[in-house]
Amino acid sequence: MSVHTDPSSEQSAVTVLGLGPMGRALAGAFLDAGLRTTVWNRTPGRDGDLVARGAAAAPSPEAAVAASPLTVVCVVNYDASDAVLRQDAVAAALKGRTVANLTADTPDRARDTAEWAERHGIRYLDGAIMTPTPTIGTDDAVFLLSGPEELYREHRPVLAALGGSQTHLGEDIGRAAAYDIALLDIFWTAMAGYAHALAVARAEGVTATELAPFAGGIAAILPPLFTEFAADADAGTYSGELNPITSAVSTMSHVVHAAEAHGIDASVMRVIEGQARRVVALGHGTDGFTRVAELLARR
Amino acid sequence: MSVHTDPSSEQSAVTVLGLGPMGRALAGAFLDAGLRTTVWNRTPGRDGDLVARGAAAAPSPEAAVAASPLTVVCVVNYDASDAVLRQDAVAAALKGRTVANLTADTPDRARDTAEWAERHGIRYLDGAIMTPTPTIGTDDAVFLLSGPEELYREHRPVLAALGGSQTHLGEDIGRAAAYDIALLDIFWTAMAGYAHALAVARAEGVTATELAPFAGGIAAILPPLFTEFAADADAGTYSGELNPITSAVSTMSHVVHAAEAHGIDASVMRVIEGQARRVVALGHGTDGFTRVAELLARR
Ligand SMILES: NC(=O)c1ccc[n+]([C@@H]2O[C@H](COP(=O)([O-])OP(=O)(O)OC[C@H]3O[C@@H](n4cnc5c(N)ncnc54)[C@H](OP(=O)(O)O)[C@@H]3O)[C@@H](O)[C@H]2O)c1
Ligand SMILES: NC(=O)c1ccc[n+]([C@@H]2O[C@H](COP(=O)([O-])OP(=O)(O)OC[C@H]3O[C@@H](n4cnc5c(N)ncnc54)[C@H](OP(=O)(O)O)[C@@H]3O)[C@@H](O)[C@H]2O)c1
Repeated sequence: MSVHTDPSSEQSAVTVLGLGPMGRALAGAFLDAGLRTTVWNRTPGRDGDLVARGAAAAPSPEAAVAASPLTVVCVVNYDASDAVLRQDAVAAALKGRTVANLTADTPDRARDTAEWAERHGIRYLDGAIMTPTPTIGTDDAVFLLSGPEELYREHRPVLAALGGSQTHLGEDIGRAAAYDIALLDIFWTAMAGYAHALAVARAEGVTATELAPFAGGIAAILPPLFTEFAADADAGTYSGELNPITSAVSTMSHVVHAAEAHGIDASVMRVIEGQARRVVALGHGTDGFTRVAELLARR
Repeated sequence: MSVHTDPSSEQSAVTVLGLGPMGRALAGAFLDAGLRTTVWNRTPGRDGDLVARGAAAAPSPEAAVAASPLTVVCVVNYDASDAVLRQDAVAAALKGRTVANLTADTPDRARDTAEWAERHGIRYLDGAIMTPTPTIGTDDAVFLLSGPEELYREHRPVLAALGGSQTHLGEDIGRAAAYDIALLDIFWTAMAGYAHALAVARAEGVTATELAPFAGGIAAILPPLFTEFAADADAGTYSGELNPITSAVSTMSHVVHAAEAHGIDASVMRVIEGQARRVVALGHGTDGFTRVAELLARR
């Protein structure tokens, strides 16, 4: 196998294991880019659209990975990717080939999978996808990757078909997962706030549609705040000059009271309010809310 | 008192009660707009900058409110605004004048304050500020107001000095607070996710500054998602076609495991994961995460 060769060769082939909403989006982007794309999914029948668009349906995961120098894995978590990859026939077929595992899980699982790959002579990149399925193949997609720089460079031309920004975070194989965990922490916690807000708004006679432009507005103030707080957090100052945590605590208690007065569960905000109150009680009432990060990691 | 009169008259005067970070920003914007601005704060000494810029410092809240047809109140919560406003001398001085209470609290407190104002012949608008202090007086500020339409119209010229978008949500006095609660619910829950992510990232050797561009990126995908989910939530469909709640649950458990493996408290995500798991167990595993809104309000 030579690294640079003509587009019709095996180098322009890619395999996708896992055809959930995200796996299908990835395979679709590879097809759109004209790559020879082989697909496989545990449950049959998810590949209909893709096959109609030119994908090759493999009868087994070992046949799928044997079809391409690069296999992209995108299943629910590493229990699932282990169930697919850690079979003798699959490991044997992958020998000398590359796996880019874009499944989400913890840094520990990424490291463990890299060790398994190493033991089986499989070349391994770990990665994470930070944007929803409709972004795949567009400028809006965001991918994080980690693992050997050289391996990343070698497969970049094929991965480029997925579009968007692709950042190689370094050789530490767990790094993409570390970023992923932190970013999904922000995402799902924010989504929990949104779902709760929908319940409270509805109880107050405000529909999700009425709230939407303002909900979008409040979310739009987060990106600049995250940038602003970053240096402050790294320095351990957590300035509350513009908005002290005592003020935040008061607001949090309003949310709890308003929700519970409607019979709505407010346990998430109760926990958050409790954390903020502890920060105040520990003597940091004039600091900003992000001081909570210290409390959470307190030893 | 005539409604429209020359700029040097009382109509162009405004009083601000409460000189925390937000009250000072409001008073500063009124001064910048050339309005005769009177200020008062419970704790003396917060008005130095404002007085240097031309504000009149009132010796008491009753003197402060007597100086202007419109008093803007911005203190920590309605316990605080009650402590200031519900004094005989203040109520007497406010008779026939207008209070616009931009303090954050619950819809119930807004309604209760409107009743008190009515009993004392005080004209009352309730409002909420949805953006941080540096936005005040700029196009980026967002204000929500509720109460009598006519009263809102009368004071709009003065309130316009605060800049940004100002939306009158209707005559129901509790409506601004209802939106405020829902939006602060989103905001502080998202901030809790951010603070937690900082702790997890740090434990993984990732600084807040390294995370910042990606954290901003993940927050930037929220506004379009909120718009997208709104109609879906109002219709009660909560589609999980692009991202089923079973996938979300898996991701949430990764956050919990990664955090706790570092000795970091993960109680917020534990609660969120538990809610999502209950939605799955109730038979909605193929729905989207926002189905949680129904669970929270379940009777
Ligand atoms: N959807 C998004 O918006 C989004 C965004 C960013 C990242 N991601 C990440 O992308 C990955 C895939 O997500 P998704 O949206 O496609 O849906 P998903 O529900 O997370 O994953 C579904 C896929 O996992 C497979 N799977 C589950 N258990 C398995 C097992 N034990 N053995 C083999 N395969 C198994 C499913 O196969 P079956 O069809 O046989 O069940 C299906 O292919 C996840 O890690 C997710 O966090 C998704
Ligand atoms: N800062 C922001 O970014 C922001 C953004 C949107 C909305 N808001 C809302 O704006 C309001 C004011 O916020 P803030 O940032 O200025 O700071 P804050 O800490 O919420 O409020 C401080 C103000 O409340 C006064 N106060 C507290 N208890 C009092 C009492 N019992 N009697 C009289 N005054 C009392 C303080 O007076 P002393 O100086 O005497 O303590 C000070 O003037 C809050 O409702 C907040 O939620 C703030």
